[in-house]
Amino acid sequence: MGNTKSFWGWGVTEQFPDWETRQKLANRLERELGFPELTVREPPSLADCHLPDPAISLPDTIPATTDRNARIHHTYGKSYPDLLRGFRGAFGPAPDAVAQPTDEEEIHRLLAWASESNVAVIPFGGGTSVVGGVEPDLVGRAGLDGTTERSRGTYTGVISLSLDGLDSIHEVDEHSRRARIGAGVYGPALNEALETHDLQLRHYPQSYEFSTVGGWIATRAGGHFATRYTHIDDFVESVRAVTPAGVLESRAVPASGAGPDPNRFLLGSEGAFGVITEAWLRVQPRPPYRARASVTFDSFWDGVEATREIVQARLSPANCRLLDPTEVLLNEVPAPGKSVLVLGFESLAEPVETTLDKARDICQTHGGTEQTAESHTDAGKSWRSSFFEGPYLFNQLVSMGVLVDTFETAVTWDRFEEMHTALTRAVQNALTEACGMGVLSCRFTHVYPDGPAPYYTFLAPAEDGRELEQWRAVKSAAADVLMEYGATITHHHAVGRVHRDWYEQEQSATYLDALWSMKRTLDPAGIMNPGVLLKEREIRR
Amino acid sequence: MGNTKSFWGWGVTEQFPDWETRQKLANRLERELGFPELTVREPPSLADCHLPDPAISLPDTIPATTDRNARIHHTYGKSYPDLLRGFRGAFGPAPDAVAQPTDEEEIHRLLAWASESNVAVIPFGGGTSVVGGVEPDLVGRAGLDGTTERSRGTYTGVISLSLDGLDSIHEVDEHSRRARIGAGVYGPALNEALETHDLQLRHYPQSYEFSTVGGWIATRAGGHFATRYTHIDDFVESVRAVTPAGVLESRAVPASGAGPDPNRFLLGSEGAFGVITEAWLRVQPRPPYRARASVTFDSFWDGVEATREIVQARLSPANCRLLDPTEVLLNEVPAPGKSVLVLGFESLAEPVETTLDKARDICQTHGGTEQTAESHTDAGKSWRSSFFEGPYLFNQLVSMGVLVDTFETAVTWDRFEEMHTALTRAVQNALTEACGMGVLSCRFTHVYPDGPAPYYTFLAPAEDGRELEQWRAVKSAAADVLMEYGATITHHHAVGRVHRDWYEQEQSATYLDALWSMKRTLDPAGIMNPGVLLKEREIRR
Repeated sequence: MGNTKSFWGWGVTEQFPDWETRQKLANRLERELGFPELTVREPPSLADCHLPDPAISLPDTIPATTDRNARIHHTYGKSYPDLLRGFRGAFGPAPDAVAQPTDEEEIHRLLAWASESNVAVIPFGGGTSVVGGVEPDLVGRAGLDGTTERSRGTYTGVISLSLDGLDSIHEVDEHSRRARIGAGVYGPALNEALETHDLQLRHYPQSYEFSTVGGWIATRAGGHFATRYTHIDDFVESVRAVTPAGVLESRAVPASGAGPDPNRFLLGSEGAFGVITEAWLRVQPRPPYRARASVTFDSFWDGVEATREIVQARLSPANCRLLDPTEVLLNEVPAPGKSVLVLGFESLAEPVETTLDKARDICQTHGGTEQTAESHTDAGKSWRSSFFEGPYLFNQLVSMGVLVDTFETAVTWDRFEEMHTALTRAVQNALTEACGMGVLSCRFTHVYPDGPAPYYTFLAPAEDGRELEQWRAVKSAAADVLMEYGATITHHHAVGRVHRDWYEQEQSATYLDALWSMKRTLDPAGIMNPGVLLKEREIRR
Repeated sequence: MGNTKSFWGWGVTEQFPDWETRQKLANRLERELGFPELTVREPPSLADCHLPDPAISLPDTIPATTDRNARIHHTYGKSYPDLLRGFRGAFGPAPDAVAQPTDEEEIHRLLAWASESNVAVIPFGGGTSVVGGVEPDLVGRAGLDGTTERSRGTYTGVISLSLDGLDSIHEVDEHSRRARIGAGVYGPALNEALETHDLQLRHYPQSYEFSTVGGWIATRAGGHFATRYTHIDDFVESVRAVTPAGVLESRAVPASGAGPDPNRFLLGSEGAFGVITEAWLRVQPRPPYRARASVTFDSFWDGVEATREIVQARLSPANCRLLDPTEVLLNEVPAPGKSVLVLGFESLAEPVETTLDKARDICQTHGGTEQTAESHTDAGKSWRSSFFEGPYLFNQLVSMGVLVDTFETAVTWDRFEEMHTALTRAVQNALTEACGMGVLSCRFTHVYPDGPAPYYTFLAPAEDGRELEQWRAVKSAAADVLMEYGATITHHHAVGRVHRDWYEQEQSATYLDALWSMKRTLDPAGIMNPGVLLKEREIRR
């Protein structure tokens, strides 16, 4: 199979199924979820896409391209609105150019020139943001036609800064189990390099194949571990970034108590302060000991209680995914109508069977029934495959006019039931109101002793031309409930441009003021990814 | 035994041994370490102390006292220079008053008044800082006489802000295993309150009995766990602080990926941005499963390798203290000439004997010999008792003219040997040069897969009147090596005023600029604990 990165959707083009396959999925949605008849369409060709001519050009001292395809590939992330616009060939917000630096010196030069020239710079790793983190639409949402006039605000132009050239594996320190990695290194390339040292990072966000070390750090990406090492944060020993005001680098030490942690200023900085160029990451061997099980519960709430008890007993499962019945249905897990808890334990040093047994006991106390080895394997397999294939499904759904998106959060256990109930009601109402109907599912992706990180997916039939409006209605309904019930606007998808309004509600005004003051110091011209994290109203120019 | 907090030294007065007991310790130092004859002196009485009259008075709307004893008790932390000056009754830098707010409203009022009046405000929890974090000497080190003129800089006066009035246990959420705790709650009071819920915090810094929740957070205090939950940081769900610009509060959620973590802005903020008033902390039941062992090594370096292997196998010991032969001697562990690794494992859910066995196996591979049950108990006991009693020893040593201090760091495994060797040489040279002789010991307090956190203690005969100069020479020699070899200036003792020079070397200038810009936003008048963390040169007034 080929390996052509899709310009409009998730992943590689060759994974996009033919019309017949997609028609089968459409039929399944009609049959199983009661969707109205769906129309399956073909994706655009590159030639069909429309985008404006570049408004600016870069000096020769900065490697860059204004190639049409490169600009198209750097226009959007991979959210539903991104796929939707991509599928229509609407690339109005395309950047004026794509800078392609290969070292920090070229980044310094680019930022200096951009600061002088009032040109916005958007760092672009793998471009898998689902929150508008890499989109050159600086002053609002450009809509389906995405006119450039609306997208530039007061900036002369916008450059997308590709980190692909910073793809070095600089050092692997086997003795201290750490590695210094360029920001532009993708997941598979990283682990391939580490494998030669019998090491791994073991950070697997769902975007793993198509996202980069720098992107993970900038967005505080969540990985596959359900407990303990839940975010890239937990693997970062130090970070180095080039800001318009100079280099910001934390010392590579195992831990420190010297002042506020500088790593934490860059983790989640989303390109608003500078460009992450490399990091020291903690690495580890592949754990030889593993054990797993799937347990079904008649009641989702029994599964919730079992999960809470498992994590509060500090059994620290590597995998602890509780699926509600709708997740079970969507993922074709053979336990219709039930909730399923997929548990996995792993260890470098010791067998984990007794730990799994402890978890089994807890599940049994809460009415859980272990699945047979056979159906267990099925559940495990369909879970794993759907994990990395999940985003590909979005491509198909967009092609048949289905509104599809996810949102995720974290909330304390004491508030979860009330929040989940209110959220389900609000989102179902919004789906009905905006789309006539719709489906909402929930699973836990990460769990903590003080609360779960639930992950929600919604699906609804979209109305041609009204999709963005419909999407916003549902997304807003969900986010409003999260804010009302003391949850966070995101556990691991970052703030970007999509979550800004709610991020402002989540944080104290004094904290946002403090972040702004940092931004003004590190990025005095306000050129760094304007509009993410902090609202554009305060951008200086 | 009584419970009178010592005004000049560590802990309670009643624990200070009589002259004869101290003379015995002096003799032991002379005999075992080859110290010259020591003169054991009596501590001052409160009446002997000298301090200047208050230069300012507070408005009636703010509860405060100018009581002489209260001011004396809020003059110093508990470092060697602090004890030294206290022992001489030299309280020149005493604050003009001690504010005693009982709620946030009174703190708001105090900060507003102080901002208008150009009065510095120093938040004071338990006052156990060993880095000059609570000392009203704003512009330099006041010396043994501590003249107030030199201490105030351009400020009209200095107020110490006691957090003792914010001592509420606000809420205990058993379901989510968390508790909302006032900043002024001391360690024992916290755990006493939690015990009624069968919960504990399980954060035991050496200062535990005399330090507060707010102080732990402000200084990123290290606790007793050798791995995993090494700092208070790991227990903090959210923090609330009153800054001159308003309240800064993070949302109480189990985790979030929304922008740079606001908790991490306050963790390590050392009172420079505002006053921490309360926090949600993650709590847990007492773990029923425990196992421990002590292993001796002929070579310190074999112990180092065994420790590295244990932590890199992710066995995650709760206790993992490697003592070098000098530590063994000073702590009277019955293994003369050896290095000793004290290992402890604990679990909420499962027996930990097999985990301990794994660690034993690793030790054996590196030539370790397990101590017999009997001497093991001795080692364990003397270790535990010396942990909380250790600081009391400082009182005794100061009373007999011994220079004594500790410093601690964290460094990656690949650099540890070289750093330790250079450090040992530099500190021994400095001790010889400054004091004619001296002793340096090392233990690991915390360990990480990527490196250890070594903790050093030095002892030397001091020369009457030259102690501060001698102390500075040794301290500087050590800190310079830490910087040179890529270690951190502190793993868990904070920056304060003592570590500032090296903190500036450790951090990027751009990062310090960013911190300064935050400070200016949150504390526009520059009244909050001026001189800690950031150098006074940039204080506005």
